[in-house]
Amino acid sequence: MSILKLSLLAVIAPLCWGPFYKTESPEKVPYPEGYRRWTHVRSGLTDADSPDYQLTGGLHHIYANDKAMEGYESGRFPDGSVIVYDLLKVQTKDGVTREGERRYLTVMHKDSKRFADTGGWGFEVFLKNSRTDRTVWPNAKMKCFDCHTNRKDQDFVFGSFRK
Amino acid sequence: MSILKLSLLAVIAPLCWGPFYKTESPEKVPYPEGYRRWTHVRSGLTDADSPDYQLTGGLHHIYANDKAMEGYESGRFPDGSVIVYDLLKVQTKDGVTREGERRYLTVMHKDSKRFADTGGWGFEVFLKNSRTDRTVWPNAKMKCFDCHTNRKDQDFVFGSFRK
Repeated sequence: MSILKLSLLAVIAPLCWGPFYKTESPEKVPYPEGYRRWTHVRSGLTDADSPDYQLTGGLHHIYANDKAMEGYESGRFPDGSVIVYDLLKVQTKDGVTREGERRYLTVMHKDSKRFADTGGWGFEVFLKNSRTDRTVWPNAKMKCFDCHTNRKDQDFVFGSFRK
Repeated sequence: MSILKLSLLAVIAPLCWGPFYKTESPEKVPYPEGYRRWTHVRSGLTDADSPDYQLTGGLHHIYANDKAMEGYESGRFPDGSVIVYDLLKVQTKDGVTREGERRYLTVMHKDSKRFADTGGWGFEVFLKNSRTDRTVWPNAKMKCFDCHTNRKDQDFVFGSFRK
């Protein structure tokens, strides 16, 4: 292969591999270490009467770090904002429902450069108590963002802080 | 009245009025300003199937300040520890239960000197969103502490921090 052809390949190859590389290895959202000491935003319960029971059945709590709390107040979430949706199984006995094991942890992480394709937000779901077992990456757009686009006027965030 | 009698009265009166004063005006627990940004300890739901529904029906969240979090870790709560039980009404529709209005806010405030008669803990219930409408003071012993004595081995605190 001539030097000219090699040089051309060096220029063209990244243009071809770029999109594949981007699809195969987009940015990963870090596990939200320490989120249990963050601010509790609000909670909700989904039971077997809901059509969403299989997906979201249980008691969920939303947590936000300090930057995300600025976002809940202003409506615009600064880079570094992290919001967690913590979903727990429940046990009900004699009219009392108690928290059980964790089902999964959903994370939204704001970084307008790293996650420019999805409104500046990275999305991830960590199964049970795992810090590495991910179910969203690398498909955040399809699995999360396509629905969050409905909340563009709220910077793609559902819900509000319960005072 | 002679000066001697007046002097005797000045010594004796506080001894007589003391117990009355103590019963009528024990220390009040301050409203836990800013508790919504404290750590969320755990939650639970009480529904109409529970015999406690009238008293505790709804979704409750427990919050703890940083000193109380030390207590949850060590089992001994230092002075300044404050724990809040935040009880909300709920609305359930199509299998989804959402948070509603606040029913009341129960507060435990650790001060081993001010609340020496009740295990070092002051107790109060603030109705709805009021910072002044109290239902416990001045009867914390009967209304709260008599039950909390069952948890003497846990420094009179029910429950634990859900990790």
